[in-house]
Amino acid sequence: MSGYFISIEGGEGAGKSTALGCIKTWLTDQGIEFIVTREPGGTPLAEEIRNLVLAPRDEPVDVYAELLLVFAARVQHVKQTILPALKAGKWVISDRFVDSSYIYQGIGRNIDAKVIDDLVDRFLQGALPDATLLLDVPVSIGLQRVASRGEMNRLDGESIAFHEKVRSGFLALAAKHSQRIHVIDANQSLESVEADICNVLSDLNTSAVGNP
Amino acid sequence: MSGYFISIEGGEGAGKSTALGCIKTWLTDQGIEFIVTREPGGTPLAEEIRNLVLAPRDEPVDVYAELLLVFAARVQHVKQTILPALKAGKWVISDRFVDSSYIYQGIGRNIDAKVIDDLVDRFLQGALPDATLLLDVPVSIGLQRVASRGEMNRLDGESIAFHEKVRSGFLALAAKHSQRIHVIDANQSLESVEADICNVLSDLNTSAVGNP
Ligand SMILES: Nc1ncnc2c1ncn2[C@@H]1O[C@H](COP(=O)(O)OP(=O)(O)O)[C@@H](O)[C@H]1O
Ligand SMILES: Nc1ncnc2c1ncn2[C@@H]1O[C@H](COP(=O)(O)OP(=O)(O)O)[C@@H](O)[C@H]1O
Ligand SMILES: [Mg+2]
Ligand SMILES: [Mg+2]
Repeated sequence: MSGYFISIEGGEGAGKSTALGCIKTWLTDQGIEFIVTREPGGTPLAEEIRNLVLAPRDEPVDVYAELLLVFAARVQHVKQTILPALKAGKWVISDRFVDSSYIYQGIGRNIDAKVIDDLVDRFLQGALPDATLLLDVPVSIGLQRVASRGEMNRLDGESIAFHEKVRSGFLALAAKHSQRIHVIDANQSLESVEADICNVLSDLNTSAVGNP
Repeated sequence: MSGYFISIEGGEGAGKSTALGCIKTWLTDQGIEFIVTREPGGTPLAEEIRNLVLAPRDEPVDVYAELLLVFAARVQHVKQTILPALKAGKWVISDRFVDSSYIYQGIGRNIDAKVIDDLVDRFLQGALPDATLLLDVPVSIGLQRVASRGEMNRLDGESIAFHEKVRSGFLALAAKHSQRIHVIDANQSLESVEADICNVLSDLNTSAVGNP
């Protein structure tokens, strides 16, 4: 018996964390047992690593140091939180997962995807999402939403060009993994975004449990 | 122009941090420019990672998460502290470096040396010690010294068997890299240990600067 692993991806302010609300409601309505988690984070130690990664700091952070920190948190997250939940038959919903590394560390920081592939292969024990919801929104809209949310972190402060690379990187990844990654137009009213998400979840549930 | 990189290794309580005192005095007497640093640590971010690694915690720390944390700190240390100092022609003295990973994460935690080799090859840009001083002391003596020092960390609290594996692992490493690693008998009075260290430093300086 094994659960189903869904990651939520997208740029800053796309609405990932907000989307968790309607996803939790939907899962509860279906009577599906689940956990909601996030990256970087998902265990006490991994959350402490998240704080190190996101804290604004004077010291320039080497891109490979950042990559290894993110993977340290991810390994702990997988072993302590994700795999135990999946083994207990629960669905796991993660606000960001490994695609964010291909985008933020890979494309954003110019790290070769092969370097990330090798870390995934060696350290993640095959714990990869069965499905991914990519919330796509124009950079300007996402950044406006972040500004109105009122808390900034080290990544929010990157240049527009960086965020544009993030957006197009995610869309390219979705094209490459079109079976796994479902693009949601997040430049709509919250109600419309939520309706689209519930539609995808219904389709996934049908295929996950194998009944029509 | 490039400096000379020396690491100090050994188990808990061998006297590594104490040895820095006589090493600094010796370098100053020779008129050699140097920096003293340590692992995990050596930059503000790397010191924060050190605190995460060494803090006692209820959550079991996955051995690969620990390995990646240590390497994240090391990459930052190499890029921000070690390479700039070596490029400026300074000697770099580090209280622990990569040998400690082969021992604590490798032998101590049963991680394949190949996994560590690959991280070294991929992320350290060849920044490896020119010479290493291994302070060797029986486990019981080292632990007595730690106890009398009065501060314990997450590694000090490991079993005697763990510390025995650490000691024999370091000695095996020294046998394998007998050109680089100089074993110092640290089960002597501090004066005798310091005299042995100064002798090794004199020999290294002769070969480093190439004058007899
Ligand atoms: N569809 C939407 N329309 C308008 N505002 C939204 C929408 N989705 C989210 N928001 C708001 O945008 C801000 C960022 O959303 P959030 O879920 O925190 O984004 P993310 O987690 O992707 O960075 C929040 O203040 C949220 O209330
Ligand atoms: N040769 C020695 N003889 C006796 N005590 C020593 C000797 N070297 C160090 N100590 C003491 O042992 C304790 C541990 O030494 P320290 O340098 O902190 O070890 P390490 O850094 O290798 O863990 C300290 O209290 C130190 O003063
Ligand atoms: Mg969010
Ligand atoms: Mg010490």
